[in-house]
Amino acid sequence: MANQDRCSDALATRVGEHMMENSPVLHHWGIELSEITNGAVTMRMTVRKDMSNLHGQCHGGVLFTMADACFGFAANSYNDRAVAASCEIKYLKPAEVGEEIIARATEVWRRGRSGLYDVAMTNQNGDKIAIMRGHARLTSGTHVETD
Amino acid sequence: MANQDRCSDALATRVGEHMMENSPVLHHWGIELSEITNGAVTMRMTVRKDMSNLHGQCHGGVLFTMADACFGFAANSYNDRAVAASCEIKYLKPAEVGEEIIARATEVWRRGRSGLYDVAMTNQNGDKIAIMRGHARLTSGTHVETD
Amino acid sequence: MANQDRCSDALATRVGEHMMENSPVLHHWGIELSEITNGAVTMRMTVRKDMSNLHGQCHGGVLFTMADACFGFAANSYNDRAVAASCEIKYLKPAEVGEEIIARATEVWRRGRSGLYDVAMTNQNGDKIAIMRGHARLTSGTHVETD
Amino acid sequence: MANQDRCSDALATRVGEHMMENSPVLHHWGIELSEITNGAVTMRMTVRKDMSNLHGQCHGGVLFTMADACFGFAANSYNDRAVAASCEIKYLKPAEVGEEIIARATEVWRRGRSGLYDVAMTNQNGDKIAIMRGHARLTSGTHVETD
Repeated sequence: MANQDRCSDALATRVGEHMMENSPVLHHWGIELSEITNGAVTMRMTVRKDMSNLHGQCHGGVLFTMADACFGFAANSYNDRAVAASCEIKYLKPAEVGEEIIARATEVWRRGRSGLYDVAMTNQNGDKIAIMRGHARLTSGTHVETD
Repeated sequence: MANQDRCSDALATRVGEHMMENSPVLHHWGIELSEITNGAVTMRMTVRKDMSNLHGQCHGGVLFTMADACFGFAANSYNDRAVAASCEIKYLKPAEVGEEIIARATEVWRRGRSGLYDVAMTNQNGDKIAIMRGHARLTSGTHVETD
Repeated sequence: MANQDRCSDALATRVGEHMMENSPVLHHWGIELSEITNGAVTMRMTVRKDMSNLHGQCHGGVLFTMADACFGFAANSYNDRAVAASCEIKYLKPAEVGEEIIARATEVWRRGRSGLYDVAMTNQNGDKIAIMRGHARLTSGTHVETD
Repeated sequence: MANQDRCSDALATRVGEHMMENSPVLHHWGIELSEITNGAVTMRMTVRKDMSNLHGQCHGGVLFTMADACFGFAANSYNDRAVAASCEIKYLKPAEVGEEIIARATEVWRRGRSGLYDVAMTNQNGDKIAIMRGHARLTSGTHVETD
């Protein structure tokens, strides 16, 4: 890995830590940041009873929140502030209380002020739970100071 | 309004109350059910500081959760159990802490085991905050008992 | 109707005529412009045998082309050049050979360089055939000269 | 490759040939089937002048038609008839007249009567032109006879 890549991944880590500190919603749902590099993020969450919907399974809003966070962190990982413009989620399999959900965001495309990210969510058995595609737009400003 | 319509709206109200009782996620975010008829639902929520994202505005996951709930209640309002298959959300304007958000779901189309619903979200000034389109699929079973 | 509105609708009409002249794809499929005002467009098309898919019904690509044109004309109706960024289509009912399809685009939201448009497609009996939501971005330049 | 896989790919090829013979829309736009296996399809098309839009570039409806065909063939490749329920396309870069477009559909998920497919479109230089995600539903019947 070239020096520049190491630097940019180190910056992504700093940005990720800064973002986690300012994300009370993620703390509430126990969504944890496992890994962050430029454009790629992994998060984990265990489904709790207070996340359940009418059917006793993980509420779609909680799953989406996790996908949205994973996508958002990836879009912001370069330290340039970005906001979500639109997202499309497909629910593939209900997530049961007690299951561990792993979400991975990858960058599909990035140019100018736009970026597209795919998020894949699986449970601890590798079953696909949901997929999401998000479109982010750069705004202005950065998250952390750099030299 | 014909007798049957009154009956079906009364049933929708019972279903809505039952669903609210089993929605800890909505309670956590202070999302309230204002109105429910067959295929149409209005909900309200005030943006709190613990809902904020990196930019100090309402987290997209919380807005989505509200839209998803509004859509889900509309899809379930006939007392037949339905689950979300997919949703597409567009974020139009950030929702600031302290703002009241109103979400209205309306039925676009319904046939066989599928239904499509549009959700429009505005703030207390009528500014458009987000729009969402959701696709629901019927599963089996009902929410409340009927004669 | 105020004078300015009459002017802007007259401009929309001129833009629409100019766009039709430069749309060989619409001519090929017999897609006709019925009405255009600022942000709102109606088009018509009769399903032909050479539009059919594997199942003998109107190809989804032809239906989408019509929806995309209707949305695109609405997004360009102010005489500022706009391009499609993304579209989501839902197919509700097959369109049979011989049916007349009517597509209506309406503006959902417009701000800065972005606009969102909904397209509803019905057949001659009013049956819903498809719905589409499109996101357009302004580029630069105009379609027709103004004083 | 196991015997069964060879058989199912041979069946996919037969299905693909049968579908091409019944696709006048693909013939009109010069969309060619390059490869088809179970759930995966590659198609090619050269952008012609009569495909151009207002901006002199490939009409979004033609690009979508190609993506839709690629997705549709993939969804039908098991010889069970499937129809498109919904599609979301993102336009990334205009396709110029004279460019060759390559579309590849891959299966993201398949269960019961539903399947999700991603289509990636590039030009001859490998530039990303568009991405599309499609949801197909099985109907009934097959395309070709088997023993």
